[in-house]
Amino acid sequence: MTSKEKDKLKHKIYTLIFEAETPAGKVFDVILLLLILLSVLVVSLESIEELSYHYLPFFRFLEWTFTIIFTIEYALRIYSTPRPFKYIFSFFGIVDLLSILPTYLSLIIFGSQSLLVVRVLRLVRIARIFKLTRFINEGNVLSKALRASMNKILVFIGVVLLVVVIVGSMMYLIEGEASGFTSIPKSIYWTIVTLTTVGYGDIAPATPLGQMLASCIMIMGYGIIAVPTGIVSVELAKSDRETANTRVCPNCHVEGHPVGAKYCFNCGYKL
Amino acid sequence: MTSKEKDKLKHKIYTLIFEAETPAGKVFDVILLLLILLSVLVVSLESIEELSYHYLPFFRFLEWTFTIIFTIEYALRIYSTPRPFKYIFSFFGIVDLLSILPTYLSLIIFGSQSLLVVRVLRLVRIARIFKLTRFINEGNVLSKALRASMNKILVFIGVVLLVVVIVGSMMYLIEGEASGFTSIPKSIYWTIVTLTTVGYGDIAPATPLGQMLASCIMIMGYGIIAVPTGIVSVELAKSDRETANTRVCPNCHVEGHPVGAKYCFNCGYKL
Amino acid sequence: MTSKEKDKLKHKIYTLIFEAETPAGKVFDVILLLLILLSVLVVSLESIEELSYHYLPFFRFLEWTFTIIFTIEYALRIYSTPRPFKYIFSFFGIVDLLSILPTYLSLIIFGSQSLLVVRVLRLVRIARIFKLTRFINEGNVLSKALRASMNKILVFIGVVLLVVVIVGSMMYLIEGEASGFTSIPKSIYWTIVTLTTVGYGDIAPATPLGQMLASCIMIMGYGIIAVPTGIVSVELAKSDRETANTRVCPNCHVEGHPVGAKYCFNCGYKL
Amino acid sequence: MTSKEKDKLKHKIYTLIFEAETPAGKVFDVILLLLILLSVLVVSLESIEELSYHYLPFFRFLEWTFTIIFTIEYALRIYSTPRPFKYIFSFFGIVDLLSILPTYLSLIIFGSQSLLVVRVLRLVRIARIFKLTRFINEGNVLSKALRASMNKILVFIGVVLLVVVIVGSMMYLIEGEASGFTSIPKSIYWTIVTLTTVGYGDIAPATPLGQMLASCIMIMGYGIIAVPTGIVSVELAKSDRETANTRVCPNCHVEGHPVGAKYCFNCGYKL
Repeated sequence: MTSKEKDKLKHKIYTLIFEAETPAGKVFDVILLLLILLSVLVVSLESIEELSYHYLPFFRFLEWTFTIIFTIEYALRIYSTPRPFKYIFSFFGIVDLLSILPTYLSLIIFGSQSLLVVRVLRLVRIARIFKLTRFINEGNVLSKALRASMNKILVFIGVVLLVVVIVGSMMYLIEGEASGFTSIPKSIYWTIVTLTTVGYGDIAPATPLGQMLASCIMIMGYGIIAVPTGIVSVELAKSDRETANTRVCPNCHVEGHPVGAKYCFNCGYKL
Repeated sequence: MTSKEKDKLKHKIYTLIFEAETPAGKVFDVILLLLILLSVLVVSLESIEELSYHYLPFFRFLEWTFTIIFTIEYALRIYSTPRPFKYIFSFFGIVDLLSILPTYLSLIIFGSQSLLVVRVLRLVRIARIFKLTRFINEGNVLSKALRASMNKILVFIGVVLLVVVIVGSMMYLIEGEASGFTSIPKSIYWTIVTLTTVGYGDIAPATPLGQMLASCIMIMGYGIIAVPTGIVSVELAKSDRETANTRVCPNCHVEGHPVGAKYCFNCGYKL
Repeated sequence: MTSKEKDKLKHKIYTLIFEAETPAGKVFDVILLLLILLSVLVVSLESIEELSYHYLPFFRFLEWTFTIIFTIEYALRIYSTPRPFKYIFSFFGIVDLLSILPTYLSLIIFGSQSLLVVRVLRLVRIARIFKLTRFINEGNVLSKALRASMNKILVFIGVVLLVVVIVGSMMYLIEGEASGFTSIPKSIYWTIVTLTTVGYGDIAPATPLGQMLASCIMIMGYGIIAVPTGIVSVELAKSDRETANTRVCPNCHVEGHPVGAKYCFNCGYKL
Repeated sequence: MTSKEKDKLKHKIYTLIFEAETPAGKVFDVILLLLILLSVLVVSLESIEELSYHYLPFFRFLEWTFTIIFTIEYALRIYSTPRPFKYIFSFFGIVDLLSILPTYLSLIIFGSQSLLVVRVLRLVRIARIFKLTRFINEGNVLSKALRASMNKILVFIGVVLLVVVIVGSMMYLIEGEASGFTSIPKSIYWTIVTLTTVGYGDIAPATPLGQMLASCIMIMGYGIIAVPTGIVSVELAKSDRETANTRVCPNCHVEGHPVGAKYCFNCGYKL
């Protein structure tokens, strides 16, 4: 094999593995995602004690199969990419390595397979599939709205954290050890659980004063939940409007034509 | 009875049972719905042990009454429909059969009546009543908005599921068996319970690190709940606006002209 | 006292008690509301065992004081109103009677004072105070929006109830007695607790299948909560817009002038 | 040092401590905030028993360090401000005193350090940092929207409190002592926990009638949560629109012209 043939093969592998525009690349991506999903499912099922007790050899076999396939894929990625080190130390490079390492480590260190769950991080690649489909527009509108509301939401989270620390400390002083408010961090944890209306009930106020303060926080939390919703709604409406009607009438320069309009609704000019 | 008379009767029954536009058809539909509601109520009440202990014969009598009525209705449906097999294997055909079968089976197999709850599925027919009333417009606006936001919500649910699997696996590694995180599927279940702010408290993090991660998820869930609300709000506003401006172009009969439009956006005709 | 003087007095009392436009009527209303609030507070505090144990005579004294005042008020209402029977059998007439009766009954039947909590219903009169204040506009916008969205919300609640009955029955079949799903009504109760993201945790699914179904319901509930919020937002926006800018420019007939505008923003005409 | 030099020094300290516009003032503010955050962190960690057991001397040392630094700061504030008494009796003056006092008191009264958590209130100063950054605009939009929706939200909270008191009393009558509804205030607390969808589960209805009423409250709470969200969304949209259109009239300097305005709505000047 000449060096040129090698280069050609390398490029072919690169296109297959790293790109998703060609039909073969698409097929590769879908198969890879199915394998990742399956391997995550196997790791999940193995973590159920009753199952792992009965089907351990079968799970081990699947684990090694997936590990070997992913190892080959990892090797091909390093081989075919023009800048191997950039890939190895990129986020996906590290995730790819971490999702095969635990199986090999389990030969030396007993029990390290449970680290295989790190494989779920590979699922982030699923985002690439989305890029190729009709969901791209929806995803864009959503992420545009979220980016636009980011600053407002940061201010909001800042205020919420301040409230949570102050209220958590007050609850620690009011309730004390008896009802489970054993430390300030734990009280802050309780305040977050309450303010977000999750409400586990593992810690709950027992004194009348504590219950009164808790009631105030809940009603506050009720109002507070309205703020991010309002922020995102407004940004979504804006981002949606901008994506939808930016066609301007060439005659009278009026905007806001409905989707599929053929004539300007203001002057009757053909669009 | 001649074949023609038979056909006429058949058609009459068909109109009565399957259609809802005639006054008799409407009455039939309302009576049928009341019977379904009553039979579901009886099955519900029978499932309460204290009641079934005291009033068993009475419940049995009602059960058989409803079953016989529904059996006659089922037979008439098969008899009157022009394409019996299409009906039998349709969704409603199967549901209709399943809602009478358990009572007959209870003669052979003891305890099979509890399967009668399948009858609740017949309640879906209630949707037909809605079609006939002033709620039709409201229902249309709602379902139009939900259909329009479907793609965005699918992208959103995809992202949420990805987050849930990753966080669930992390909680499994962090918390371990002690606090109830006994397997990855169970940890994922806990993550969903927390992210949706349901918060049963049957499983709750006990380690400081777990509680910190849980706090992050809750505050995230707080922000995340804003996204579907925003999506639906925007679509509802759009769908509402479009339904409101139902001015029809007298030339091409296209709807949905913006407020203040002077010309039809489709054919340029002066409104 | 002549009959004319009597009539005058009657009318004076009527204006004082039933109307709220005169300064004296306003003062009467505020004092009455304070008395109702205080009497509700006393009934509330008496229900706390530790307090009622120590301060029973004091509570009884207050109770009788309030009862006598409210009895006089009730008598004056009957005396002064032109149509006594209409008042006696109106909602407020019955509530007024019920809020004094239990104290008298407690002389005959021991323990009937606990029925005094019915007095809280008198608090609904607080709505009259709102009518007199600057909150009237805000209240109008809110109630207008809620009335406008009523039909949509009824359709929505209908669909939710249908889902709740179907899912509740399924959970009863899946989970069974072991995890607390002892009857269909109880399973439906659990489904409502879960779908509304309240999540007490007194009943929680234990089987993998049950937990999977529960996860689906939660994620559904997440999306479902978006619907009423969207409906109310849209109606509030509409109702707010209509209340705000309905001024039309007399020259060019353009709407939507900001509050406090002096000139039309489109043609510069003085409004 | 002459009196003039003293005055100059005083003014220099004042600018450094109280103002945040100069570069030195900014640096001072950031350092102060870091110290407050650190001291809150130390108080929080000390409240965890396992940590305070092992590292008590270290925590005490840090505590005294922070106290001495804050004491010097407090003294300088009193010294440099032109009106010392106004500062001492202002909100921040009292908070500043309260955040150093407990450490000194702990020399006399054992255990008073736990009052040091009052220091978290100093974190409110963090708001000053926000004033200096690009978050100012976002914060303005948010606080403007919240102020504008205040009246509507007050009406809403009034109605919610009325419902909560009435339903809480009904639950007390229905459920009674057995299921934890031991007094009316406790029942009201439970109603708030349920209506806000927090749902601890420390108190939960056990009777069928109680569970039915609870179900109604939950579904109501579901609809009720929509109201503040709708209010805030509408106000945010308005406040956002007004902030966005900050075109100022060159003639009368009025802001807030609608998009597409050709004339100032205040003075009729052509824009």
